[in-house]
Amino acid sequence: MELGKNHIGFTYTATGGKTFTTFNPKLNQANDITFTEATSEEIDTAVALATEAFNLYKNTSCKERALFINAIADEILALDDTLVQMYCQETGLPEGRAKGERGRTIFQLQSFANLLSEGSWVDATIDVANLDRTPFPKLDLRRMDIPLGPVVVFGASNFPLAYSTAGGDTASALAAGCPVIVKSHPMHAGTGTLVAEAICKAAKKTGMPDGVFSNLNSSGIEVGQQLVSHPKVKAVGFTGSIRGGRALLDLAAKRPEPIPVFAEMGSINPVVMLHKELEKNTSYWAEAYAQSISLGAGQFCTQPGLILSLKGEVFTNFTNLLVSEIKKIDSSCMLHPAIFEEFQSNKKISQSQSGLEVLTDENSVESPNFAPPSIVRIDGDLFLKNPILHQEVFGPYTLLVECESLAQMRTIITNLDGQLTASLIATEDEAKASFEIIEALQNRVGRLVFNGVPTGVEVCNSMVHGGPYPASTDSRFSAVGVHAIKRWVRPFSFQNFPDSLLPEALKEQNPLDIKQTRI
Amino acid sequence: MELGKNHIGFTYTATGGKTFTTFNPKLNQANDITFTEATSEEIDTAVALATEAFNLYKNTSCKERALFINAIADEILALDDTLVQMYCQETGLPEGRAKGERGRTIFQLQSFANLLSEGSWVDATIDVANLDRTPFPKLDLRRMDIPLGPVVVFGASNFPLAYSTAGGDTASALAAGCPVIVKSHPMHAGTGTLVAEAICKAAKKTGMPDGVFSNLNSSGIEVGQQLVSHPKVKAVGFTGSIRGGRALLDLAAKRPEPIPVFAEMGSINPVVMLHKELEKNTSYWAEAYAQSISLGAGQFCTQPGLILSLKGEVFTNFTNLLVSEIKKIDSSCMLHPAIFEEFQSNKKISQSQSGLEVLTDENSVESPNFAPPSIVRIDGDLFLKNPILHQEVFGPYTLLVECESLAQMRTIITNLDGQLTASLIATEDEAKASFEIIEALQNRVGRLVFNGVPTGVEVCNSMVHGGPYPASTDSRFSAVGVHAIKRWVRPFSFQNFPDSLLPEALKEQNPLDIKQTRI
Repeated sequence: MELGKNHIGFTYTATGGKTFTTFNPKLNQANDITFTEATSEEIDTAVALATEAFNLYKNTSCKERALFINAIADEILALDDTLVQMYCQETGLPEGRAKGERGRTIFQLQSFANLLSEGSWVDATIDVANLDRTPFPKLDLRRMDIPLGPVVVFGASNFPLAYSTAGGDTASALAAGCPVIVKSHPMHAGTGTLVAEAICKAAKKTGMPDGVFSNLNSSGIEVGQQLVSHPKVKAVGFTGSIRGGRALLDLAAKRPEPIPVFAEMGSINPVVMLHKELEKNTSYWAEAYAQSISLGAGQFCTQPGLILSLKGEVFTNFTNLLVSEIKKIDSSCMLHPAIFEEFQSNKKISQSQSGLEVLTDENSVESPNFAPPSIVRIDGDLFLKNPILHQEVFGPYTLLVECESLAQMRTIITNLDGQLTASLIATEDEAKASFEIIEALQNRVGRLVFNGVPTGVEVCNSMVHGGPYPASTDSRFSAVGVHAIKRWVRPFSFQNFPDSLLPEALKEQNPLDIKQTRI
Repeated sequence: MELGKNHIGFTYTATGGKTFTTFNPKLNQANDITFTEATSEEIDTAVALATEAFNLYKNTSCKERALFINAIADEILALDDTLVQMYCQETGLPEGRAKGERGRTIFQLQSFANLLSEGSWVDATIDVANLDRTPFPKLDLRRMDIPLGPVVVFGASNFPLAYSTAGGDTASALAAGCPVIVKSHPMHAGTGTLVAEAICKAAKKTGMPDGVFSNLNSSGIEVGQQLVSHPKVKAVGFTGSIRGGRALLDLAAKRPEPIPVFAEMGSINPVVMLHKELEKNTSYWAEAYAQSISLGAGQFCTQPGLILSLKGEVFTNFTNLLVSEIKKIDSSCMLHPAIFEEFQSNKKISQSQSGLEVLTDENSVESPNFAPPSIVRIDGDLFLKNPILHQEVFGPYTLLVECESLAQMRTIITNLDGQLTASLIATEDEAKASFEIIEALQNRVGRLVFNGVPTGVEVCNSMVHGGPYPASTDSRFSAVGVHAIKRWVRPFSFQNFPDSLLPEALKEQNPLDIKQTRI
């Protein structure tokens, strides 16, 4: 492998003239390796290979794909320190985070491998024939999920492992039986290439077809645009900004054959704090939220960017404690100068809004790209009237809103854009008495947290990571958890098929020993 | 009720100045009732009512909604001959078809009511907490499906009952917990109003909120456009032409908040006939396909518009028998002069293509709007080169393609647009030897029929009615069968919620006694 090249299936190429490097934000200097952006021809080759691979890959058994996906996990672990160091160089994130995210990535891969090994995920349903039915006989009809075709995955800036090259989108699409072409994120192209190599090694070791996976370097928007417009691409996964996700959605919608785009985008993750619980455990919540706000320099899609409470002594006490907790936390390095600059610029816009009070904004580390957690405050009516304040400031930035009444709070919630999560801090009795607040929150989000923080997205069956637009482009699916596989499959019916021609999952004797729903 | 008015929730209004009538194609004359198209204000009122109703309706229990939906079925049956006669007057279809379609509509409603009564459809999943887990405790997380919000349903011209006012889209959306606003089909506005009245009666009887259902008259495209663009509308169901469905999809994609559109559109439903089976049962297949081609004047989305076979004596014999069977079948009345004229015009375009041979095209009934079943034939290479011939001619029109080889046949299939169905006529051994043909068909369709006809769409769990674009706009869902409910719901997670605040479906003691997947 040569680190700067593209993986076009199992082949390394770098025929283009456009090159770029990644950047070490902690050292504030460019890294060494030169990456060559994929050319239009390389993109076409990758898609053609993926299309050919699909014809073979979709016919692999779930158990074969499970071996492949587990092998990816093994190969990623085998990269060991090489991967961790590359990750840290390209993100400014600490080694602990690199290892934690690697663990999450491995766990995700293994979760999908387990799903495949068990096999029931295809939702096999069998309507048995009833030839005696009048006036028309009922024919044997059997349905199961089948893969859509080649999927394009866009790596996320803030999760170089767990939501990028071998992240949740790739793992779920490969599990579904779809070849994957990754548009690598330019900020961590080296991490991406290492992981791509791990995937290709695993594919070769487990006998998967050339083209089941490709990884394309890209520094601008052209590679992504060409991929999403390509007639042979059948679906798109994206994690990133609203602007970026919407552009891809629009592009996909304009195709002669529109294709599904699942984009997980921005969110300010509103938190509602009711007074009884807040008064009872003020310092606990101040500490918990100071951590959640500043974790990973606030660069999480579930960062709590908005806290709503009733104006009054209880919330003021909490605010004071939160500010003092925040001041204890060191500034941390953001992922890239571009992200740091956008944070500074968005923060400035937000802070200049009428009536906004800056409570803490001090930088404990005077180094480039280090951002201080920032807490600001405003009255409910001013917030309600100012849509600029409803927008995400990606980074460690949280707006406290002092509401006049629960009715005003409800109006504010109702007027928010769609969100990934909402959190409710309340006693059980308070919550019961605030049914309308819970209802309003539920209408706007995909996950509702009771007495907790929104950060920490558990990878499990019951997780919903997605929500009403613009939290995601299709709230009917989740980006996290094994249900994420459903984004890349479609149901298929076999009518009156002889057993010998049916796929294993639908055969009468159930050779896979999976759950078959018989009706 | 006054028949020409709109149902804006439980209120009848007709404030607009634009009126229209329906048409009896058999008598070739306009029907009596004057319908008043919904105004912009009436549309806004209907959506506002639906939005308010949603807040109540989504909290009804599944059992309550089951009572409502069963009551709709009862009220439709209670309309008895009034409905059947109105249906026949507005469609030119025979009484038997009216009653058959009514039976299908009732069955669909009852299927969803049964799904609700049982209750497990919400896919309740419970990840139990593990507070001892290291490094982070695992929190209790529970997911279930919740409704999207107000849904707009477009009535279909060819199914005034089963895919219109109280058809599959409406039944599934109401079952999901979504209020429905129907944009009534102008060709059968009277049938639509009668059914709308049945739905409103049922809603009142079972205590459902005003606005849970509205029915809007419309003669052009404006009412539909305003509905799809309305910010409070959260999803769209449509059955009809590719042109119409695509226009709605594009409109929905351009909204500030894009919404899902499920459009079930055109299809030519390719049939592959292999020689051994065809030779063995030539007359059986000729008879079966003559019926399937001409059924309901070919006005079905699953009408077999394309038959592929290898050139040779076997297919020639079949063709001759098919033609002689077709000649025995009387022409039948199409739904509307506009549909008849479009059929004539599309047929003319198709028949004028180079190399196309007209085998039968005789009208047995010389009345206006009566269409003769028409069989045409062409060589594989000419078909392959001419995309005009790949388009649907809606009506009793079927193109036989004589292929040079199985390889050519496969190329033809690969180059077809997405389809609802494909059918394979073959012996089991032939089919086994033609794996690549089956594969190619599977890539293009949602349902594959072995030794049968594509018409007859069973309403059951294993049915997939949908397919790759343009068969439908989102192949990940089916328009028919109880799975159709999944188009109108989104997954939702409750994290760390006290049992008392959880919805019944997710409570620890499982009071609904539904299937809860515990992990």
